[in-house]
Amino acid sequence: MRQVLDELEIGTCGQGFYEVTGELARWLYRQPIRRGLLTVFLKHTSASLVIQENVDADVQADMAEFFRRLVPEDAAGYRHAAEGPDDMPAHIRAALTQTQLALPVTDGRLALGTYQGVFLFEHRRSPKRRRLALHLLGE
Amino acid sequence: MRQVLDELEIGTCGQGFYEVTGELARWLYRQPIRRGLLTVFLKHTSASLVIQENVDADVQADMAEFFRRLVPEDAAGYRHAAEGPDDMPAHIRAALTQTQLALPVTDGRLALGTYQGVFLFEHRRSPKRRRLALHLLGE
Amino acid sequence: MRQVLDELEIGTCGQGFYEVTGELARWLYRQPIRRGLLTVFLKHTSASLVIQENVDADVQADMAEFFRRLVPEDAAGYRHAAEGPDDMPAHIRAALTQTQLALPVTDGRLALGTYQGVFLFEHRRSPKRRRLALHLLGE
Repeated sequence: MRQVLDELEIGTCGQGFYEVTGELARWLYRQPIRRGLLTVFLKHTSASLVIQENVDADVQADMAEFFRRLVPEDAAGYRHAAEGPDDMPAHIRAALTQTQLALPVTDGRLALGTYQGVFLFEHRRSPKRRRLALHLLGE
Repeated sequence: MRQVLDELEIGTCGQGFYEVTGELARWLYRQPIRRGLLTVFLKHTSASLVIQENVDADVQADMAEFFRRLVPEDAAGYRHAAEGPDDMPAHIRAALTQTQLALPVTDGRLALGTYQGVFLFEHRRSPKRRRLALHLLGE
Repeated sequence: MRQVLDELEIGTCGQGFYEVTGELARWLYRQPIRRGLLTVFLKHTSASLVIQENVDADVQADMAEFFRRLVPEDAAGYRHAAEGPDDMPAHIRAALTQTQLALPVTDGRLALGTYQGVFLFEHRRSPKRRRLALHLLGE
Protein backbone atom coordinates (compact mmCIF):
# COMPACT_ATOMS: atom_id res chain seq x y z
CA MET A 1 0.00 0.00 0.00
CA ARG A 2 1.30 3.41 -0.93
CA GLN A 3 0.02 6.93 -1.56
CA VAL A 4 0.71 9.81 -3.94
CA LEU A 5 -0.21 13.44 -3.24
CA ASP A 6 -0.18 16.01 -6.03
CA GLU A 7 -2.00 19.06 -7.42
CA LEU A 8 -3.54 19.86 -10.79
CA GLU A 9 -4.51 23.32 -12.05
CA ILE A 10 -7.58 23.84 -14.24
CA GLY A 11 -8.35 27.10 -16.02
CA THR A 12 -11.97 28.24 -16.26
CA CYS A 13 -13.47 31.07 -18.33
CA GLY A 14 -16.84 31.83 -16.82
CA GLN A 15 -19.70 29.94 -15.21
CA GLY A 16 -20.48 26.40 -16.25
CA PHE A 17 -19.29 22.81 -16.28
CA TYR A 18 -15.72 21.84 -17.21
CA GLU A 19 -15.16 18.11 -17.54
CA VAL A 20 -11.90 17.02 -15.86
CA THR A 21 -12.26 13.25 -16.29
CA GLY A 22 -9.56 13.28 -19.00
CA GLU A 23 -7.09 15.31 -16.90
CA LEU A 24 -7.60 12.92 -13.97
CA ALA A 25 -7.23 9.84 -16.21
CA ARG A 26 -3.98 11.13 -17.74
CA TRP A 27 -2.56 11.97 -14.31
CA LEU A 28 -3.58 8.52 -13.03
CA TYR A 29 -1.94 6.79 -15.98
CA ARG A 30 1.46 8.12 -14.91
CA GLN A 31 1.17 6.85 -11.30
CA PRO A 32 2.55 3.52 -10.02
CA ILE A 33 -0.78 2.50 -8.44
CA ARG A 34 -3.24 0.25 -10.31
CA ARG A 35 -5.97 -0.44 -7.72
CA GLY A 36 -7.19 1.85 -4.99
CA LEU A 37 -8.97 5.14 -4.37
CA LEU A 38 -8.41 8.61 -5.83
CA THR A 39 -9.66 11.54 -3.74
CA VAL A 40 -10.06 14.86 -5.54
CA PHE A 41 -10.28 17.97 -3.37
CA LEU A 42 -11.04 21.44 -4.76
CA LYS A 43 -9.15 24.19 -2.90
CA HIS A 44 -11.78 26.90 -3.50
CA THR A 45 -15.17 27.92 -2.09
CA SER A 46 -16.75 29.53 -5.17
CA ALA A 47 -16.52 26.51 -7.48
CA SER A 48 -17.36 22.85 -6.85
CA LEU A 49 -17.19 19.26 -8.09
CA VAL A 50 -20.04 17.25 -9.58
CA ILE A 51 -20.21 13.76 -11.06
CA GLN A 52 -22.73 13.83 -13.88
CA GLU A 53 -23.70 12.41 -17.24
CA ASN A 54 -21.12 13.36 -19.85
CA VAL A 55 -22.91 12.20 -23.01
CA ASP A 56 -25.56 14.85 -23.62
CA ALA A 57 -24.30 18.42 -23.03
CA ASP A 58 -27.94 19.48 -22.49
CA VAL A 59 -27.73 17.83 -19.06
CA GLN A 60 -25.07 20.33 -18.00
CA ALA A 61 -27.01 23.25 -19.53
CA ASP A 62 -30.21 22.28 -17.67
CA MET A 63 -28.25 21.73 -14.46
CA ALA A 64 -26.59 25.15 -14.70
CA GLU A 65 -29.96 26.79 -15.29
CA PHE A 66 -31.49 25.03 -12.29
CA PHE A 67 -28.75 26.40 -10.02
CA ARG A 68 -29.07 29.90 -11.52
CA ARG A 69 -32.76 29.91 -10.58
CA LEU A 70 -32.37 28.24 -7.19
CA VAL A 71 -29.60 30.64 -6.11
CA PRO A 72 -30.20 33.87 -8.06
CA GLU A 73 -27.47 36.48 -8.44
CA ASP A 74 -29.84 39.42 -8.37
CA ALA A 75 -31.42 38.51 -5.06
CA ALA A 76 -31.68 41.61 -2.94
CA GLY A 77 -30.16 41.40 0.45
CA TYR A 78 -26.94 39.37 0.43
CA ARG A 79 -24.77 40.88 3.16
CA HIS A 80 -21.61 39.56 1.50
CA ALA A 81 -21.57 41.65 -1.71
CA ALA A 82 -18.15 43.32 -1.83
CA GLU A 83 -16.65 40.67 -4.13
CA GLY A 84 -19.36 41.06 -6.79
CA PRO A 85 -22.96 39.88 -7.26
CA ASP A 86 -21.82 36.41 -8.35
CA ASP A 87 -19.67 35.69 -5.27
CA MET A 88 -22.21 34.90 -2.54
CA PRO A 89 -24.37 32.79 -4.93
CA ALA A 90 -21.13 30.98 -5.82
CA HIS A 91 -20.54 30.03 -2.18
CA ILE A 92 -24.12 28.77 -1.80
CA ARG A 93 -24.02 26.75 -5.04
CA ALA A 94 -20.73 25.23 -3.87
CA ALA A 95 -22.26 24.25 -0.50
CA LEU A 96 -25.13 22.52 -2.35
CA THR A 97 -22.72 20.41 -4.43
CA GLN A 98 -19.31 18.92 -3.54
CA THR A 99 -15.82 20.09 -2.57
CA GLN A 100 -14.32 16.60 -2.64
CA LEU A 101 -14.96 13.27 -4.35
CA ALA A 102 -13.47 9.81 -3.77
CA LEU A 103 -13.28 7.68 -6.92
CA PRO A 104 -12.50 3.94 -7.13
CA VAL A 105 -9.52 2.93 -9.27
CA THR A 106 -9.15 -0.49 -10.94
CA ASP A 107 -6.69 -1.59 -13.65
CA GLY A 108 -5.04 1.83 -13.45
CA ARG A 109 -8.25 3.60 -14.46
CA LEU A 110 -11.10 5.47 -12.82
CA ALA A 111 -13.83 2.87 -12.26
CA LEU A 112 -16.69 5.24 -13.09
CA GLY A 113 -20.08 4.20 -14.41
CA THR A 114 -20.57 4.12 -18.18
CA TYR A 115 -22.00 7.64 -18.47
CA GLN A 116 -20.29 9.28 -15.50
CA GLY A 117 -17.89 12.18 -15.89
CA VAL A 118 -16.18 14.34 -13.24
CA PHE A 119 -16.89 18.05 -13.67
CA LEU A 120 -15.50 21.21 -12.18
CA PHE A 121 -18.59 23.41 -11.73
CA GLU A 122 -17.41 27.04 -11.98
CA HIS A 123 -19.67 29.57 -10.24
CA ARG A 124 -17.72 32.81 -10.92
CA ARG A 125 -18.04 34.90 -14.07
CA SER A 126 -14.41 35.95 -14.45
CA PRO A 127 -11.59 33.60 -15.58
CA LYS A 128 -10.01 31.64 -12.74
CA ARG A 129 -7.16 29.20 -12.11
CA ARG A 130 -8.58 26.40 -9.94
CA ARG A 131 -6.38 24.00 -7.98
CA LEU A 132 -7.33 20.37 -7.38
CA ALA A 133 -5.47 18.49 -4.65
CA LEU A 134 -5.18 14.77 -5.46
CA HIS A 135 -4.64 11.90 -3.04
CA LEU A 136 -4.16 8.47 -4.58
CA LEU A 137 -4.04 5.42 -2.34
CA GLY A 138 -3.56 1.83 -3.37
CA GLU A 139 -1.15 -0.75 -4.70
CA MET B 1 -2.77 -1.96 6.00
CA ARG B 2 -4.68 -3.55 3.17
CA GLN B 3 -7.58 -2.82 0.86
CA VAL B 4 -10.50 -4.66 -0.70
CA LEU B 5 -12.37 -3.51 -3.82
CA ASP B 6 -15.71 -5.03 -4.74
CA GLU B 7 -19.15 -4.24 -6.17
CA LEU B 8 -22.69 -4.77 -4.88
CA GLU B 9 -25.87 -4.62 -6.95
CA ILE B 10 -29.11 -3.20 -5.54
CA GLY B 11 -32.47 -3.50 -7.28
CA THR B 12 -34.90 -0.57 -7.09
CA CYS B 13 -38.55 -0.42 -8.13
CA GLY B 14 -39.41 3.24 -8.49
CA GLN B 15 -38.55 6.52 -6.80
CA GLY B 16 -37.75 6.62 -3.11
CA PHE B 17 -35.31 5.59 -0.41
CA TYR B 18 -33.84 2.09 -0.19
CA GLU B 19 -31.82 1.43 2.94
CA VAL B 20 -28.59 -0.41 2.19
CA THR B 21 -27.03 -0.34 5.68
CA GLY B 22 -27.75 -4.05 6.10
CA GLU B 23 -26.23 -5.03 2.73
CA LEU B 24 -23.09 -3.02 3.57
CA ALA B 25 -22.86 -4.52 7.07
CA ARG B 26 -23.19 -8.09 5.76
CA TRP B 27 -20.53 -7.45 3.11
CA LEU B 28 -18.25 -5.90 5.73
CA TYR B 29 -18.70 -8.86 8.08
CA ARG B 30 -17.10 -11.16 5.48
CA GLN B 31 -13.96 -8.99 5.02
CA PRO B 32 -10.64 -9.48 6.86
CA ILE B 33 -10.48 -5.81 7.96
CA ARG B 34 -11.72 -4.73 11.40
CA ARG B 35 -10.75 -1.04 11.58
CA GLY B 36 -10.58 1.46 8.76
CA LEU B 37 -12.69 3.29 6.20
CA LEU B 38 -15.34 2.04 3.78
CA THR B 39 -15.97 4.20 0.71
CA VAL B 40 -19.23 3.56 -1.17
CA PHE B 41 -19.42 4.92 -4.72
CA LEU B 42 -22.63 4.81 -6.81
CA LYS B 43 -21.91 4.19 -10.50
CA HIS B 44 -24.98 6.10 -11.78
CA THR B 45 -26.06 9.71 -12.32
CA SER B 46 -29.82 9.38 -11.84
CA ALA B 47 -29.75 7.96 -8.30
CA SER B 48 -27.73 9.02 -5.27
CA LEU B 49 -26.62 8.21 -1.72
CA VAL B 50 -27.90 9.82 1.47
CA ILE B 51 -27.16 9.18 5.14
CA GLN B 52 -30.35 9.80 7.09
CA GLU B 53 -32.44 8.83 10.07
CA ASN B 54 -33.64 5.26 9.70
CA VAL B 55 -36.07 5.06 12.61
CA ASP B 56 -39.14 6.98 11.39
CA ALA B 57 -40.06 6.23 7.76
CA ASP B 58 -41.88 9.59 7.67
CA VAL B 59 -38.45 11.25 7.44
CA GLN B 60 -37.84 9.57 4.10
CA ALA B 61 -41.35 10.39 2.88
CA ASP B 62 -40.96 14.09 3.77
CA MET B 63 -37.49 14.15 2.23
CA ALA B 64 -38.73 12.63 -1.03
CA GLU B 65 -41.57 15.16 -1.19
CA PHE B 66 -39.17 18.06 -0.61
CA PHE B 67 -37.03 16.96 -3.57
CA ARG B 68 -40.12 16.43 -5.78
CA ARG B 69 -41.13 20.05 -5.15
CA LEU B 70 -37.63 21.53 -5.39
CA VAL B 71 -36.89 19.76 -8.68
CA PRO B 72 -40.28 19.22 -10.37
CA GLU B 73 -40.71 16.71 -13.17
CA ASP B 74 -43.32 18.73 -15.01
CA ALA B 75 -41.19 21.85 -15.28
CA ALA B 76 -41.44 23.22 -18.78
CA GLY B 77 -38.22 23.74 -20.56
CA TYR B 78 -35.71 21.00 -19.77
CA ARG B 79 -33.59 20.64 -22.90
CA HIS B 80 -32.64 17.06 -21.93
CA ALA B 81 -36.02 15.33 -22.27
CA ALA B 82 -35.45 12.37 -24.60
CA GLU B 83 -35.00 9.85 -21.75
CA GLY B 84 -38.34 10.74 -20.11
CA PRO B 85 -39.67 13.51 -17.85
CA ASP B 86 -38.07 11.96 -14.76
CA ASP B 87 -34.52 11.81 -16.17
CA MET B 88 -33.30 15.42 -15.99
CA PRO B 89 -34.84 15.96 -12.52
CA ALA B 90 -33.05 12.74 -11.51
CA HIS B 91 -29.67 14.20 -12.53
CA ILE B 92 -30.34 17.42 -10.60
CA ARG B 93 -31.55 15.61 -7.46
CA ALA B 94 -28.40 13.46 -7.65
CA ALA B 95 -26.17 16.55 -7.90
CA LEU B 96 -27.85 17.99 -4.78
CA THR B 97 -27.12 14.84 -2.75
CA GLN B 98 -24.12 12.44 -2.88
CA THR B 99 -22.51 10.00 -5.29
CA GLN B 100 -20.01 8.71 -2.74
CA LEU B 101 -19.73 8.35 1.03
CA ALA B 102 -16.81 7.40 3.28
CA LEU B 103 -17.82 5.57 6.45
CA PRO B 104 -15.63 4.79 9.47
CA VAL B 105 -15.27 1.12 10.45
CA THR B 106 -14.46 -0.08 13.98
CA ASP B 107 -14.68 -3.62 15.44
CA GLY B 108 -15.61 -4.89 11.98
CA ARG B 109 -18.74 -2.73 11.85
CA LEU B 110 -19.86 0.56 10.35
CA ALA B 111 -19.31 3.16 13.08
CA LEU B 112 -22.47 5.14 12.26
CA GLY B 113 -24.40 7.31 14.69
CA THR B 114 -27.25 5.70 16.61
CA TYR B 115 -29.99 6.73 14.17
CA GLN B 116 -27.98 6.88 10.95
CA GLY B 117 -28.71 4.65 7.99
CA VAL B 118 -27.22 4.63 4.50
CA PHE B 119 -29.82 4.98 1.75
CA LEU B 120 -29.83 4.61 -1.99
CA PHE B 121 -32.08 7.45 -3.17
CA GLU B 122 -33.66 6.32 -6.46
CA HIS B 123 -34.80 9.15 -8.74
CA ARG B 124 -36.11 7.13 -11.73
CA ARG B 125 -39.64 5.72 -12.01
CA SER B 126 -38.81 2.45 -13.75
CA PRO B 127 -37.10 -0.54 -12.05
CA LYS B 128 -33.30 -0.36 -12.12
CA ARG B 129 -30.26 -2.41 -11.16
CA ARG B 130 -27.87 -0.06 -9.35
CA ARG B 131 -24.19 -0.86 -8.84
CA LEU B 132 -22.24 0.27 -5.78
CA ALA B 133 -18.44 0.16 -5.95
CA LEU B 134 -16.91 -0.52 -2.53
CA HIS B 135 -13.40 0.32 -1.35
CA LEU B 136 -12.45 -0.89 2.11
CA LEU B 137 -9.15 0.21 3.64
CA GLY B 138 -7.75 -0.73 7.01
CA GLU B 139 -6.23 -3.48 9.10
CA MET C 1 1.31 3.59 5.74
CA ARG C 2 -0.72 3.70 8.90
CA GLN C 3 -4.09 4.91 10.16
CA VAL C 4 -5.53 6.54 13.27
CA LEU C 5 -9.22 6.45 14.24
CA ASP C 6 -10.59 8.78 16.89
CA GLU C 7 -13.58 10.92 17.85
CA LEU C 8 -14.00 14.60 18.72
CA GLU C 9 -16.99 16.17 20.43
CA ILE C 10 -18.20 19.66 19.51
CA GLY C 11 -20.81 21.58 21.52
CA THR C 12 -23.33 23.73 19.65
CA CYS C 13 -25.82 26.26 21.03
CA GLY C 14 -28.41 26.80 18.33
CA GLN C 15 -28.56 26.98 14.56
CA GLY C 16 -25.62 28.28 12.58
CA PHE C 17 -22.04 27.65 11.53
CA TYR C 18 -19.34 26.53 13.98
CA GLU C 19 -15.85 26.52 12.54
CA VAL C 20 -13.93 23.36 13.52
CA THR C 21 -10.78 23.92 11.45
CA GLY C 22 -8.81 24.76 14.61
CA GLU C 23 -10.01 21.68 16.50
CA LEU C 24 -9.07 19.47 13.55
CA ALA C 25 -5.66 21.16 13.18
CA ARG C 26 -4.85 20.70 16.88
CA TRP C 27 -5.87 17.04 16.78
CA LEU C 28 -3.80 16.53 13.63
CA TYR C 29 -0.75 18.16 15.22
CA ARG C 30 -0.65 15.42 17.86
CA GLN C 31 -0.71 12.54 15.36
CA PRO C 32 2.35 10.71 13.98
CA ILE C 33 1.25 11.15 10.33
CA ARG C 34 2.57 14.04 8.21
CA ARG C 35 1.16 13.31 4.75
CA GLY C 36 -2.09 11.67 3.85
CA LEU C 37 -5.84 12.07 4.06
CA LEU C 38 -8.11 13.01 6.96
CA THR C 39 -11.75 11.91 6.70
CA VAL C 40 -14.22 13.64 9.01
CA PHE C 41 -17.57 11.93 9.54
CA LEU C 42 -20.45 13.50 11.47
CA LYS C 43 -22.43 10.92 13.46
CA HIS C 44 -25.75 12.83 13.30
CA THR C 45 -28.54 13.45 10.79
CA SER C 46 -29.73 16.90 11.92
CA ALA C 47 -26.42 18.74 11.51
CA SER C 48 -23.90 18.66 8.67
CA LEU C 49 -20.43 19.61 7.44
CA VAL C 50 -19.60 22.40 5.00
CA ILE C 51 -16.30 23.74 3.68
CA GLN C 52 -16.70 27.47 3.19
CA GLU C 53 -14.98 30.84 3.25
CA ASN C 54 -13.88 31.66 6.79
CA VAL C 55 -12.80 35.28 6.32
CA ASP C 56 -16.08 37.20 6.12
CA ALA C 57 -18.68 36.03 8.66
CA ASP C 58 -21.37 37.52 6.38
CA VAL C 59 -20.88 34.50 4.11
CA GLN C 60 -22.07 32.20 6.87
CA ALA C 61 -24.99 34.53 7.73
CA ASP C 62 -26.14 34.65 4.08
CA MET C 63 -25.70 30.90 3.74
CA ALA C 64 -27.77 30.21 6.87
CA GLU C 65 -30.52 32.52 5.59
CA PHE C 66 -30.58 30.80 2.20
CA PHE C 67 -31.14 27.41 3.86
CA ARG C 68 -33.83 28.85 6.18
CA ARG C 69 -35.77 30.03 3.12
CA LEU C 70 -35.14 26.95 0.99
CA VAL C 71 -36.24 24.56 3.76
CA PRO C 72 -38.67 26.52 5.94
CA GLU C 73 -39.52 25.39 9.45
CA ASP C 74 -43.09 26.61 9.30
CA ALA C 75 -44.00 24.64 6.18
CA ALA C 76 -47.33 22.99 6.72
CA GLY C 77 -47.43 19.31 6.15
CA TYR C 78 -44.28 17.61 7.37
CA ARG C 79 -45.34 14.14 8.47
CA HIS C 80 -42.32 13.86 10.79
CA ALA C 81 -43.16 16.54 13.38
CA ALA C 82 -42.98 14.82 16.77
CA GLU C 83 -39.42 15.97 17.49
CA GLY C 84 -40.22 19.65 16.94
CA PRO C 85 -40.70 21.99 13.95
CA ASP C 86 -36.93 22.30 13.41
CA ASP C 87 -36.25 18.54 13.17
CA MET C 88 -37.50 17.61 9.69
CA PRO C 89 -36.01 20.76 8.10
CA ALA C 90 -32.75 19.80 9.86
CA HIS C 91 -32.73 16.40 8.14
CA ILE C 92 -33.39 18.00 4.73
CA ARG C 93 -30.72 20.69 5.19
CA ALA C 94 -28.28 17.94 6.20
CA ALA C 95 -29.10 15.91 3.06
CA LEU C 96 -28.40 19.01 0.92
CA THR C 97 -24.95 19.47 2.46
CA GLN C 98 -22.39 16.88 3.67
CA THR C 99 -22.10 14.23 6.37
CA GLN C 100 -18.44 13.48 5.58
CA LEU C 101 -15.43 15.25 4.12
CA ALA C 102 -11.99 13.97 3.07
CA LEU C 103 -9.21 16.55 3.48
CA PRO C 104 -5.65 16.29 2.15
CA VAL C 105 -2.83 16.52 4.71
CA THR C 106 0.70 17.73 3.89
CA ASP C 107 3.52 18.70 6.28
CA GLY C 108 1.31 17.65 9.19
CA ARG C 109 -1.34 20.22 8.31
CA LEU C 110 -4.69 20.36 6.54
CA ALA C 111 -3.88 21.35 2.95
CA LEU C 112 -6.94 23.56 2.54
CA GLY C 113 -7.23 26.50 0.16
CA THR C 114 -6.30 29.95 1.47
CA TYR C 115 -9.83 30.96 2.47
CA GLN C 116 -11.28 27.54 3.23
CA GLY C 117 -12.55 26.58 6.66
CA VAL C 118 -14.35 23.44 7.84
CA PHE C 119 -17.68 24.17 9.52
CA LEU C 120 -20.16 22.18 11.52
CA PHE C 121 -23.54 23.44 10.29
CA GLU C 122 -25.99 23.02 13.18
CA HIS C 123 -29.64 22.76 12.15
CA ARG C 124 -31.30 22.28 15.57
CA ARG C 125 -32.33 25.11 17.89
CA SER C 126 -31.46 23.48 21.21
CA PRO C 127 -27.89 22.93 22.49
CA LYS C 128 -26.32 19.69 21.28
CA ARG C 129 -23.17 17.63 21.72
CA ARG C 130 -22.04 16.57 18.23
CA ARG C 131 -19.58 13.75 17.62
CA LEU C 132 -17.12 13.73 14.74
CA ALA C 133 -15.46 10.43 13.83
CA LEU C 134 -11.96 10.97 12.41
CA HIS C 135 -9.97 8.64 10.16
CA LEU C 136 -6.42 9.68 9.36
CA LEU C 137 -4.44 7.72 6.80
CA GLY C 138 -0.90 8.34 5.69
CA GLU C 139 2.76 8.17 6.63
